Amino acid sequence: MKKAVCLLSGGIDSTTTAAIAKAEGWEILALTVDYGQRHRREIKAAGRVASALKIAEHIHLELDLRAWGGSALTSENIAVPVGQELGSCPRRIPITYVPARNMILLSLAVSYAEAKQAQRVYFGANSRDYSGYPDCRPEFVQAFTKAATLGTRTGVEGRPIEILAPLQKLTKAEIIRRGIELGVDYSLTWSCYERKEEACGKCDSCRIRLAAFAELGMEDPISYENK
Amino acid sequence: MKKAVCLLSGGIDSTTTAAIAKAEGWEILALTVDYGQRHRREIKAAGRVASALKIAEHIHLELDLRAWGGSALTSENIAVPVGQELGSCPRRIPITYVPARNMILLSLAVSYAEAKQAQRVYFGANSRDYSGYPDCRPEFVQAFTKAATLGTRTGVEGRPIEILAPLQKLTKAEIIRRGIELGVDYSLTWSCYERKEEACGKCDSCRIRLAAFAELGMEDPISYENK
Repeated sequence: MKKAVCLLSGGIDSTTTAAIAKAEGWEILALTVDYGQRHRREIKAAGRVASALKIAEHIHLELDLRAWGGSALTSENIAVPVGQELGSCPRRIPITYVPARNMILLSLAVSYAEAKQAQRVYFGANSRDYSGYPDCRPEFVQAFTKAATLGTRTGVEGRPIEILAPLQKLTKAEIIRRGIELGVDYSLTWSCYERKEEACGKCDSCRIRLAAFAELGMEDPISYENK
Repeated sequence: MKKAVCLLSGGIDSTTTAAIAKAEGWEILALTVDYGQRHRREIKAAGRVASALKIAEHIHLELDLRAWGGSALTSENIAVPVGQELGSCPRRIPITYVPARNMILLSLAVSYAEAKQAQRVYFGANSRDYSGYPDCRPEFVQAFTKAATLGTRTGVEGRPIEILAPLQKLTKAEIIRRGIELGVDYSLTWSCYERKEEACGKCDSCRIRLAAFAELGMEDPISYENK
């Protein structure tokens, strides 16, 4: 059986991506990175999702990016913004951008894939209903794939690891619809940027999620403080 | 003063690179990653080098790549090879290659640089007297730089972080000669792949180092079990 590494944060996008990879017949090696994110609750969600999807192997890796911070998600001194304008073409990169995070996560995923003879990496990047992160864009994923091909044994030996972002062009509502078709239970996931018992309902991540469920005429199955 | 992140492993190449960056007038932010390497003794060496070079800030980051292994440096089950043919055009990538390691390290360095408003990353990659690692080659560094430009806030905003590998085309003897001109004390460094009190003198890393000092008609200032 062919193996694929899936970056699994425990949010809607990575959960749906893992379900797609599984439906495409891949044995899944899931990688969840505790990078010191404020919303570490997503890591528990990743564990629940991995169990529900009966994932072959699930590695939790610790990597404390609070060492240098620089983001509302990795620094206690920077607040998570609320009530900013959302849209598919945001003008500014928000303060929840974690410097070079997806490059770090993809590098780790490629390393894991290479060590375990996996042929693919699945990654939940999405550039439509997103927050304006540069490292979710197709041109970044393409350039990263080229670097990974040149910088790895498998790449040099003519068996480059493929990096797939199957949600790249979908809206958040389309992502959820696809997940529901595949039997994903979104009550297991976590998207909120805050470290609370219930999702805040106010940060960009909550608002994008709530808007997508509303567009589908569905109730978001997780609980919110405010919505 | 302009700031540069230097990847500092504690070996000859990264130490010389940091000395070059300092001589070029940059304030150095050093990054040493404990990735579970067999030769963790190099981390102590990195601390000594950082002190000797009076580096502004030095971060030690833990990231345990033994989680998936796949290299003689990150798996206890794979021995460090000895007595292989050395040369500037090795045919095979050795088992001491750590999957995607330099991509991971460079991604972390770019993240650190972006968070601290540093304009450069210095990296000790060298593609002449080396062991055949794909992620030391100029074509990899170039492709990685493009990905980093597309995937970061600074890149998108037109202030891409420069990635420099000033040793790229030097032989190991030329690197040491340059370091000595800059006052580097190589007795502080560590190159051996084994976890021993004295360097083994047999692994590729020891042999490349010993050959370079011999070429310069100098005594390597560290102690060896065998040489």
